[in-house]
Amino acid sequence: MAILDRMTDYHDLVNLSDESLNVLCQELRDTIIKVVLKNGGHLGSPLGAVELTVALLRQFDPERDKIVFDVGHQSYTYKILTGRKEEFHTLRQWEGISGFPKRSESRFDHFDVGHSSTSLSASLGFSKARDLKGTNHDVVAIIGDGSLLNGMAFEALNYVKEANTKVIFILNDNEMCISRRVGGFATHLARLSSNYTYKKIKRIVRESSSKLPKGATIEAFLEKTKNKIKGLIKPDNIFDEMGINYWGPFDGHNIKELESVFGLARKYDKPVIIHVVTKKGKGYRKAEEKPWIYHGVSPSTSPKCSFSWSQAVASTLERLADENKDIVCLTAAMKEGNKLNSFSAKFPDRFFDVGIAEEHMFTMAAGMAAGGIKPCVFIYSTFMQRAMDQLVHDIAMQNLPVVISVDRAGLIGQDGETHQGLLDVAWGRSIPNLHILSPRDLIDLELMYRYAFERQGPTMIRYPRGKICKSIHRKGPRPANTNMKSKILSSGKEWAFIGYGKTIEFLLHTRQLAMEQNLPEPSVLDLRIVKPLDYQTIDNVLKTHSLVIVAEDGYINGGIGEIIAGRTNGMSSRTTVRLFGVPDKFIPHGTTEQQWEYCGMTPEKVIEAYLGHTKAKA
Amino acid sequence: MAILDRMTDYHDLVNLSDESLNVLCQELRDTIIKVVLKNGGHLGSPLGAVELTVALLRQFDPERDKIVFDVGHQSYTYKILTGRKEEFHTLRQWEGISGFPKRSESRFDHFDVGHSSTSLSASLGFSKARDLKGTNHDVVAIIGDGSLLNGMAFEALNYVKEANTKVIFILNDNEMCISRRVGGFATHLARLSSNYTYKKIKRIVRESSSKLPKGATIEAFLEKTKNKIKGLIKPDNIFDEMGINYWGPFDGHNIKELESVFGLARKYDKPVIIHVVTKKGKGYRKAEEKPWIYHGVSPSTSPKCSFSWSQAVASTLERLADENKDIVCLTAAMKEGNKLNSFSAKFPDRFFDVGIAEEHMFTMAAGMAAGGIKPCVFIYSTFMQRAMDQLVHDIAMQNLPVVISVDRAGLIGQDGETHQGLLDVAWGRSIPNLHILSPRDLIDLELMYRYAFERQGPTMIRYPRGKICKSIHRKGPRPANTNMKSKILSSGKEWAFIGYGKTIEFLLHTRQLAMEQNLPEPSVLDLRIVKPLDYQTIDNVLKTHSLVIVAEDGYINGGIGEIIAGRTNGMSSRTTVRLFGVPDKFIPHGTTEQQWEYCGMTPEKVIEAYLGHTKAKA
Repeated sequence: MAILDRMTDYHDLVNLSDESLNVLCQELRDTIIKVVLKNGGHLGSPLGAVELTVALLRQFDPERDKIVFDVGHQSYTYKILTGRKEEFHTLRQWEGISGFPKRSESRFDHFDVGHSSTSLSASLGFSKARDLKGTNHDVVAIIGDGSLLNGMAFEALNYVKEANTKVIFILNDNEMCISRRVGGFATHLARLSSNYTYKKIKRIVRESSSKLPKGATIEAFLEKTKNKIKGLIKPDNIFDEMGINYWGPFDGHNIKELESVFGLARKYDKPVIIHVVTKKGKGYRKAEEKPWIYHGVSPSTSPKCSFSWSQAVASTLERLADENKDIVCLTAAMKEGNKLNSFSAKFPDRFFDVGIAEEHMFTMAAGMAAGGIKPCVFIYSTFMQRAMDQLVHDIAMQNLPVVISVDRAGLIGQDGETHQGLLDVAWGRSIPNLHILSPRDLIDLELMYRYAFERQGPTMIRYPRGKICKSIHRKGPRPANTNMKSKILSSGKEWAFIGYGKTIEFLLHTRQLAMEQNLPEPSVLDLRIVKPLDYQTIDNVLKTHSLVIVAEDGYINGGIGEIIAGRTNGMSSRTTVRLFGVPDKFIPHGTTEQQWEYCGMTPEKVIEAYLGHTKAKA
Repeated sequence: MAILDRMTDYHDLVNLSDESLNVLCQELRDTIIKVVLKNGGHLGSPLGAVELTVALLRQFDPERDKIVFDVGHQSYTYKILTGRKEEFHTLRQWEGISGFPKRSESRFDHFDVGHSSTSLSASLGFSKARDLKGTNHDVVAIIGDGSLLNGMAFEALNYVKEANTKVIFILNDNEMCISRRVGGFATHLARLSSNYTYKKIKRIVRESSSKLPKGATIEAFLEKTKNKIKGLIKPDNIFDEMGINYWGPFDGHNIKELESVFGLARKYDKPVIIHVVTKKGKGYRKAEEKPWIYHGVSPSTSPKCSFSWSQAVASTLERLADENKDIVCLTAAMKEGNKLNSFSAKFPDRFFDVGIAEEHMFTMAAGMAAGGIKPCVFIYSTFMQRAMDQLVHDIAMQNLPVVISVDRAGLIGQDGETHQGLLDVAWGRSIPNLHILSPRDLIDLELMYRYAFERQGPTMIRYPRGKICKSIHRKGPRPANTNMKSKILSSGKEWAFIGYGKTIEFLLHTRQLAMEQNLPEPSVLDLRIVKPLDYQTIDNVLKTHSLVIVAEDGYINGGIGEIIAGRTNGMSSRTTVRLFGVPDKFIPHGTTEQQWEYCGMTPEKVIEAYLGHTKAKA
């Protein structure tokens, strides 16, 4: 790290020779690879964006100019070069550097991101704020080709002409978002990026950028140049058609070329989209060859889960799809995350990857269900927030039998704030017709999917990130029916635990510890069905225990615990209900264990609640 | 109604002469105008789509083919001609014909709609279901130009190439969605629809449609024709670029022309988008001239509200914007609905109509707030469901000071199920950093907006459809500070009412009736701030009354009442809490009064609750 070690931050970039810049880029790659393979994180995106970021930081001033990354996977080099070199080894660790841009982490991070396709809208907002305040700085959004295909990005593109403000969009086209990118617009991008003739414009722009003055003259020149080329064989271009100045494609690994076009864009006073072609995983052979595997990497220290929840659900779906040929699966660019590779290989005609298009996916599933087949939509809890209206308006209102597999529900670890799945229950439980289930183990998982596919209405099944147990706290024969009642797992006295999904393991563990401390054995109730609630069983637990602990892997605000506490109103028994779950905060990155502890979800706190309760009663 | 009266339904269309068809279209217009001017509803869209619908019903079989209207305003003619002629006069009335397609109303309505831009995704779902089931029918989506500009429609367009299924999209381009349409893509559409050269293709298509056999031959012919014209002066075309077959533009008021192109599309075996140009409000001079006014019409029987909540908020914003030049307003194609005409005229640089693009609007507002100005986003409660992730991920997570004006919150009357605003509180209250306020009158409204613009974080202010009172139940001097505590409006004994916003009027009225019946005077608490709750005041009310009634203009599931009931857990006093609000159902169209009654929100039911309570205690 001969060069990186000697640098303070991006200010030193201007003094580096071309050769030194190349060495630096390799050093940045080595640093990123080392940290990501240890801590987990994203590899393909940041490796592809090294030269792009160096060129950005040589041409723009990150203190003054608003640089907005889309999603934020690409921002590692930016973090290293804007004062976070020394802390970079703490990437994605508790109280360490976030895997995404974060305003609270650095003044150089101008806008928090994590979900895709927000950067164009945000940068239009920054530009308009600048125009109104009469200040003078650049606004730059860096967006990947996958993110550009989401509807929200299209809405922003459509607004560019109307906004009539100076803003710079950099389309970082690595021809591979999380999975293979999808659709007609993607094909169009590919055609643009491979077009030879249009490269002429690029060369002219590059060669002329140093000679030109600011403002109108540039535009006149560009117009002339473009029209000249258009008169020859300029390809049709969607951006031009929408009234957005399109420049490109440029080589995203050529710092000089990028600098000259960024320099021109700085002088230009209209909105412009600069198309840059990069290679995902550049410089790390394994990631270059299999970018979909190295998009996100798990921490090397985490136990290798031989069987994850996602895998369990995917295999269950394969089995059910064998039995019922109406079952189809949909995902929004999360085939790998949802472990649907095998399903898609086995049932290519019954598998639909729609790209990063959650809204479209939910409504297409509604159409499929109305058309008489059985769609199962796969989505991470955090991304379902993007399709809530479609869930209400297109699925639930028509009571259509769509099954929604809500993956990564609850606290999800290193991706942090932006990716927590804490709202699905709180939001879902207000929606009429929707049923919400949460299995504690593999046996319930299968029963619940069978129930969902039999139902003539929408059903959400939520499950966490991490490892699944085949069987938790079961006696006797394997249950055969799909009756969705709550289940008493353990009958104790005096106090009781109520939970669902992942919290059941936690509560059973706490029960064990309590009994080891010679406390009375608590009852344990697994709700299993979260909407509609099994009030008969819940009320019975409330009436027969003096302390009831409810634990949820989601926000307490709006959660099930509140309803259970409210049930005691008007009961003749005196029962104290204590709620455990996520407090009214955004929960930062770290391990899920650290996040649970931060939220006070520990056996010790539960036992403390019992001791406090008995003391108060005495 | 010489012709319409004699018809049973669409089957009779085939026997009508050209001349009779023209007469029929005028009769359909007369019917629609008469009913809409009486009952309220949409005028511009259905009048523009009369010939289009007649041509559709002559070429397709609505029993077998899946015809999906986008938004659904256009569907009145369709309703009249598919067996609902006699009931059409009950349009938008309680238990009458819905203003939107509704599966539960007719087997000819294939997919429920109300919100924009869902039809393309839904029809792709229907097509895929058909392909998998091996059945044989057409799927047709009819989408307006405004709806096509929403991101969700773009996601579907992008997926067309991938979907590789036979589907017919009809773009009904009336060059005017709810407000003026917005953006670069809109400009592109305008260019297409005015292009003369491309009309050649149209003529060739039309002339050849009758002669051609099914399948591949058509395609070869079309390709040849298109390429021939392209070789001349074919305009750049975004649909073609995205791999979607684009045919058009066609005259949307020429039934013969439409029929011939629909006939060709039926024989064609690839996805196709047919561009049809119509005139919004066609045949009703006032609506043709001022389409934005006649987009939606209020029932003539409703009292003319001299001062609506929307107007009050808009004027307040004008006043505040005079004082603070950082304040800007944003709307998603709802300038008229949100009464922002005057604001936009007075502050053209500080007003942003982004088109039907709720997601983009929220995140652009976040960017503006991060850039140091004070955006106020206007949105109907029901449409906020489209931007929930942006509210969480882009606004609340960064604690950005965006003010969200949630209009039409609660039960909203004649638009029915799809437009009810029942989820904003239930969903919003789980979001960290967000404050939620709800004024009961004009005085609180201004105080609350002042509070929101002073706050360094996001604030949602929700208000209902209908008329606002200047002052409700106030004594003494006008409050000057923006302290957001709850407020006891009336101190009684034994029982208490808790509500916020519109329910306060209801509860004060109920109090009056109760006292007239010689019942003890109930206390009345106006929560004012719904998140975070003023627990001190609430707990005090709970501790000092034996019955507490909570009334909400939103779902009980997930509402504030549940928290209040839960607060009694562990209290030494015995207080019964009874919740009034919207039950776990979708609430159909009718007057808001009918809807409140359907939900059991009547003074009589509240008084009944009191009598039942005292009887049980006795």
